[in-house]
Order: sequence, then structure tokens, then C-alpha cells
Amino acid sequence: MNRIITISRQFGSGGREFGRRLAQELGFEYYDKQIISEIAKKTSMSEEYIQEVIERKPHSLYPISFGHTFIYIDNYYPVHQANDIYIEQNRIIKEMAEKSDCVIIGRCADYILKDYDPFRIFVYADIQARLNRCKQRAPEDENLTDKELVKKINKIDKGRSQYYEYYTGLNWGDMNNYDLCLNTSKGNIKELVKITARLFK
Amino acid sequence: MNRIITISRQFGSGGREFGRRLAQELGFEYYDKQIISEIAKKTSMSEEYIQEVIERKPHSLYPISFGHTFIYIDNYYPVHQANDIYIEQNRIIKEMAEKSDCVIIGRCADYILKDYDPFRIFVYADIQARLNRCKQRAPEDENLTDKELVKKINKIDKGRSQYYEYYTGLNWGDMNNYDLCLNTSKGNIKELVKITARLFK
Repeated sequence: MNRIITISRQFGSGGREFGRRLAQELGFEYYDKQIISEIAKKTSMSEEYIQEVIERKPHSLYPISFGHTFIYIDNYYPVHQANDIYIEQNRIIKEMAEKSDCVIIGRCADYILKDYDPFRIFVYADIQARLNRCKQRAPEDENLTDKELVKKINKIDKGRSQYYEYYTGLNWGDMNNYDLCLNTSKGNIKELVKITARLFK
Repeated sequence: MNRIITISRQFGSGGREFGRRLAQELGFEYYDKQIISEIAKKTSMSEEYIQEVIERKPHSLYPISFGHTFIYIDNYYPVHQANDIYIEQNRIIKEMAEKSDCVIIGRCADYILKDYDPFRIFVYADIQARLNRCKQRAPEDENLTDKELVKKINKIDKGRSQYYEYYTGLNWGDMNNYDLCLNTSKGNIKELVKITARLFK
């Protein structure tokens, strides 16, 4: 069986950099945004739309009732489309796992591949470290205050968490769902890659 | 400054074995039960009593009132004695950290030594793995059913958690309070020791 490493990560923790470097160090395939492109190819949806859908919990198309009041939700994604995407994502991720040793970023891969016994890593950092990282990497025309940036970070993570919980029934970021949880607040990603790689050499 | 590694651990996860092996591998001092003996020497309390006190949250000496009813708590430890022990523990742990590179098991050392920038590890495992480990290591005359053993494991961890939270104001087992969280469910303690050691070599 191929060796599969899945990386779940808090936004701004450097989990993607960690995964990319780890794959490089090990000579494993690396899958990240490629998963989105593959889904786009197989469905009639755009990459941008898919990216948005898979980072938040789907809502029902139907109005929700609270007592005798009906509430319509703005900004929702139809549950059937989200499910179609999830099914496609499921198929593509399994195909990738069948092909060769690999590192897969996000996308519930830890859960989708549970029968493949993946090594499941969660990468996190304290909010100050994530804020600093996001500021360093922000596009030039993004002028968010620290407060706005923290709000954005928390919103993205909330979306990831809800999406994960919706499809897996598990708590995103609960250490019991991972084999190794790495705190990158001290900025030691390269070092953490080196030691983690030794588990696979 | 000396290199300090603190190990917090779920009961039955093998955190103590991990810590002992890590200290051995690195040639660091190893502190575990020795902390209790030192506290016993400095106070007029027995090691057994201290062991019990530091694994649960202290209660007030005074009766608690619920509405108009006063309730007396059985099996409590006076808060002032618990505090005396905590203060002594605090002093001893700092003394240990001043002496040399070391690995310290439990006892809120991660929090007590926060100004020493310790590398904080949390060792955990799923309940089945912890149950198996406890059964393998149970004294011959202990005949607990699996259900009773799980209850015992959870009770001990609840006590540790409450004690930690009482004195630190932080959540025990919350990954944000640790640099590295290691899941030992796969029985790979020796391997995890080897890779962790590389962070200090």
C-alpha cells in the first residue's frame, strides 16, 4: 500500500508550506489545488466556485423554519451541488492515493482515505503567528487592519471546520483525529519537516 | 539557558515511557516521581498524600451553600494544603530547570516554566490503546473489567485536567498550549522518541 500523508491546517499556520516541503523532502507526490482543478474538469463548475463551496458547510436549498417563521438564507450553496463536489473529490482523492506515495493538503483526505491508513498531521499556530504570516504574504492591494485580518482567519477556519464536520461527523482540529499535531508558532517549519520526514525514511 | 522539555500526557498513553526514553536518548536529566519525593521532604506530608492532592482540583475547606442548604464535601483536600504543595512544587521545578537540560513529566511544569521557554509536548492515544496499555501493565491483583478500567482512566484524566486548569487557568490537553502533540495509539513510542530527539541534537 502507498504511504499517504494528509495535512489538515489552520489558516495562516503554514500547513501548506509544511506539506509541500515534506513531499519534496520525501520525494512523494504533492496534491493541493490540483484536486480543485480535477473536480472542475469533471463537473461543469468553475475552480473559483468549487473553492468557495468546499470551504464552508452547505446549506439546504429550502427555507428553514423557526417556529412559525420561515427564514431564507443568503449566500448559501445548494446542498446537492456541494454533495456532487464532495463525491467527485472523494473519487479523485482515492485515485491519487492509489497512484503513489503522496502528501495531500486538506479536503477531508484524512477521513476519505481512512481505509488507506494515512498518517494524519494537523498543523496549527497561535493567532499572533498566523496574523504575522498572513501579513507577510498578503497581496499588495490588501489593506486589512489586524482586527479585520484576525476576523478573516477565524472565518475561514470556521468554514473549514463546519465543512469537515458536515461530511465526516468528526471535529476538525480535535487532536484525537490526527497522529501528529505540530505547532508552527516558533517559525520552525523547515525543522519540523526534517523530523517528520524521518518517520517515513 | 538550559533546554527544558515538558511532557503532559493522558493516563495510559505511554507519556511517561516516552519522556524517560527521550531523556535517555538526549542525555538529559529526567524528573518524574522525584518531584513528589522532594515536596515530601520539604513539607510534613507523605508522598502518597501529595500524589493524591496533585492529581485533582482542591476544594474549599468551607461548606458550600446551594440555596438555603449547606453541603459538606467528603474526600476533599484543603485548599491551603494544596496551595502549599503547589508553591513547593513550583520552587522545586524551577530549581530543576536551573540545574541542567531536562525532561519533566506532568506537574504543570509547562506552565510553571513558561519563562524558560520549554518545549511542551502532549502525549495522547485513543481509549482502546490506553485500555490495552493499562491492562498489560496492571498489577496482578487488579481485576477490573474493561468498563471499570475506562472509568478509572477517565477519572484520573479528569482530575489532572481540573488540577491543571485550577492552577494555570488554561485547558489541559488544548493543543494550543503545546508545541507538539503525539498520538501513540499505533504503539510507535520508540520511533516518536527518535524523531523528537532530533529537534534537540
